[in-house]
Amino acid sequence: MKRIKKLINHIISRVNVNLRPMGLDVEQVVKSTIDYGKLTEAYAYYALSIDHPIYFRFRESNLGGSYFLGKCDVDRSIVLRSDIRGDELKTAGTEVDFGGVTTELYRDEVIMVVNSFLFKTLVHNHSRNPEIPELFRIQNTVSMHYANIHGATIEGAYLGAFATADLSQLHNCILGNYCYVQAGDLSKVCIDPGRIWIKADNKYEFDYRYPQATLEKYISWDQDGELVGLFADFLKGRRSDFLPVYDSLSDTFPVWVPENAFVSRYAVVKGDCVIGGNCLVAQRAYIENSVLGTGSNAQENSFIVDSRFAGLVVVAHGGKLVHSNIGEKVFIGFNSFLHGTKDNQVSVGAGSIVMPHTIIHASEPIDIPDETIVWGYVTKQSDLETQSMSLAAFAKGKAFNIGDMSFYGDGAAFIRDFQNRVEHILVENGARYDGNSESRGHAQRTQYVSYNLFQPYLSGEKQGMFPTIIVDDD
Amino acid sequence: MKRIKKLINHIISRVNVNLRPMGLDVEQVVKSTIDYGKLTEAYAYYALSIDHPIYFRFRESNLGGSYFLGKCDVDRSIVLRSDIRGDELKTAGTEVDFGGVTTELYRDEVIMVVNSFLFKTLVHNHSRNPEIPELFRIQNTVSMHYANIHGATIEGAYLGAFATADLSQLHNCILGNYCYVQAGDLSKVCIDPGRIWIKADNKYEFDYRYPQATLEKYISWDQDGELVGLFADFLKGRRSDFLPVYDSLSDTFPVWVPENAFVSRYAVVKGDCVIGGNCLVAQRAYIENSVLGTGSNAQENSFIVDSRFAGLVVVAHGGKLVHSNIGEKVFIGFNSFLHGTKDNQVSVGAGSIVMPHTIIHASEPIDIPDETIVWGYVTKQSDLETQSMSLAAFAKGKAFNIGDMSFYGDGAAFIRDFQNRVEHILVENGARYDGNSESRGHAQRTQYVSYNLFQPYLSGEKQGMFPTIIVDDD
Repeated sequence: MKRIKKLINHIISRVNVNLRPMGLDVEQVVKSTIDYGKLTEAYAYYALSIDHPIYFRFRESNLGGSYFLGKCDVDRSIVLRSDIRGDELKTAGTEVDFGGVTTELYRDEVIMVVNSFLFKTLVHNHSRNPEIPELFRIQNTVSMHYANIHGATIEGAYLGAFATADLSQLHNCILGNYCYVQAGDLSKVCIDPGRIWIKADNKYEFDYRYPQATLEKYISWDQDGELVGLFADFLKGRRSDFLPVYDSLSDTFPVWVPENAFVSRYAVVKGDCVIGGNCLVAQRAYIENSVLGTGSNAQENSFIVDSRFAGLVVVAHGGKLVHSNIGEKVFIGFNSFLHGTKDNQVSVGAGSIVMPHTIIHASEPIDIPDETIVWGYVTKQSDLETQSMSLAAFAKGKAFNIGDMSFYGDGAAFIRDFQNRVEHILVENGARYDGNSESRGHAQRTQYVSYNLFQPYLSGEKQGMFPTIIVDDD
Repeated sequence: MKRIKKLINHIISRVNVNLRPMGLDVEQVVKSTIDYGKLTEAYAYYALSIDHPIYFRFRESNLGGSYFLGKCDVDRSIVLRSDIRGDELKTAGTEVDFGGVTTELYRDEVIMVVNSFLFKTLVHNHSRNPEIPELFRIQNTVSMHYANIHGATIEGAYLGAFATADLSQLHNCILGNYCYVQAGDLSKVCIDPGRIWIKADNKYEFDYRYPQATLEKYISWDQDGELVGLFADFLKGRRSDFLPVYDSLSDTFPVWVPENAFVSRYAVVKGDCVIGGNCLVAQRAYIENSVLGTGSNAQENSFIVDSRFAGLVVVAHGGKLVHSNIGEKVFIGFNSFLHGTKDNQVSVGAGSIVMPHTIIHASEPIDIPDETIVWGYVTKQSDLETQSMSLAAFAKGKAFNIGDMSFYGDGAAFIRDFQNRVEHILVENGARYDGNSESRGHAQRTQYVSYNLFQPYLSGEKQGMFPTIIVDDD
């Protein structure tokens, strides 16, 4: 395993030269996360679809358990059990606009991961990088358990567990556990754990901070550098359900899937489930005893247990729902956690927005009315007073503090931007498919997908390293 | 499927420009063999082992269900359910001798398949090609069910079902069903079905011809171009046992495997089996209710059912044994068929040579003494009078006809060459492993093998085509 140890030290040194000036040394966190014995266990898989450009190259890397789609280039990196899903990469000739200035892509956009360690990270591409719009670049970066990377460039960054970098570019930044940032181009900032920060220049700024003690119940590290807390417990109990899915190459589904819906063969579907038309159930989604109404989607790392969805519900990456009843066109943001019980159900009314990184952990029945925006930490109905507003009231606001949240700017624009994004996600995922090929989305376009599977060397100096692999459409 | 149809026509045209002058048109045989619906079903797999040079490139091809090891390059070919096993490819710097003239390989030898259709074909490399010793080349060739290619170059050739080209080079040759040829450099010859022809210039020549009617019971084509006969029936009944093996990615073996033995996870092991130390059970071997003594090997496409082996038994590619008791260091040649029943067992004594393409189909118990060479078609004990000799008697012979066999030349050299080859196979396969690393063979060297799995496009114009794929050690 000489080569992989050298690689790990290489990555640590490249990240540390960027982050040590900010006071962070990633050596311990990386080394305590990597289990050398497990580096040879899982295969990487590259999805082949005629509706996505094909190009995959990786060198000097370990990619165990990771999924790739679209054009991807991985060099001197460790990408473990991650999802690199490039289905919104732009193609050559696309005109992109940066603050009113436009330029045309001279070749297809490629996700590029260099000198980085990504662990159970979800990368879904939406590049806002004017430097090289042809590259969705993640470089010199350490990203921990269930972090989400939606924007690039990410250079010299550390993302804590369940952190989300959404549409942002980061240069030499530190993101604490469970923080969410959507704030454009950031350099040398350090985002506190549990901070939810959305900022659009000259438009609005939303800021919420979890109380530290609350956060630690859900996410923290023990003295061995192991992720602990209620989120880890939740995931641990369900991990073994994925084993048969990854051990089998057969294409049988445990549920009836309507013609225009898509259930990845790398999803878990357990118990009594109903999947509606135009639904999308991505790889690593987990559905148990639940109903997904027409056009709903369960994105990567989402868990939907004992729950009922009306149509057009979007569960973003890492959203978890137990005993929840969700109305039409509700958005469940990244890494949100809606945890009811049989007696204390969580209900969310139609048109509502559950902000990214919201925790609703019901100690009594929780009922969120239609057209509500909710954020933060909710355990009982009365918590909603300081952690939700009607969309209409929010849209009227210009500057307010409520509980641990502050907002400044154009409330109407904020709500509108969210609603537009939800509609965009629904369209992209195929929820609006009406039989015409222009309305096809991921659910329809990934109907015919095959996989190329890659394993590493199992012994010798290169144990744990993958060979150089190139897959090309040519 | 436009592209794959174009590819098929391309291959047919390249083979036909070579073989039409000899009176053969391969169009019908190729088109009736390819099942378009099945072209997307199976994956290709490339074995990764630190003990074998890694380089795999393929372009414009379908490789469904095929296995590759070592350096391989496939271009504009259809290689279906075949084994391309390059574990004896020579490395750069190896000195090779062609009739007393030596030259050194300037780079690692590569198996190269171009403009060819190989169906269930076994390619195991032993190149005798002075033109470019760096290339084990199969070009403009059609090779049918369970043919064996052991020598190269093969250019502009047609190999019928169960045909074997052993150590030979062929240029514009036609090999009939179940013929076996080991005769050096051949051009523009047509080998009759069921002819077993071994020729070493200035040394010896062995020639046996199956009666046409006998052969047709075992191998023939029906009016739809489907392979029929007793061999096809035998294989058909066992095909479904391989499905779970190919559908699963887990590494559990249904039998205890001693530390220095190797059982491929792509082999079938059924019922009550014992695998001895230093044994090699290759992918696509099939073992049922049988005992393999120390150092025995079951090569690709071999079937061993209700049989008992002493140590050091070699079952070459495609050998099939039912209710057979095999003594120490017996060689069962390519595609031989030893079929006993519970009451009519086939016994072969120690040190015996069962020639390639021998059929022993017992209608009564058959007992072959130690140190015997046997060939041809045997159904009862008395058949052995014309289809076997003691090694000692054969070694004394200079020229004889016996039954349908004729031999001229140095009998002792013939026997010695066979025995040397058996010993070479045992050494190569690791049967002689004694704990020292120099005595390691395939059984020990392939202990730590992982696989890269490739699937084709599932829809559109490219349906059935694989993308360009390169795997490199670099």
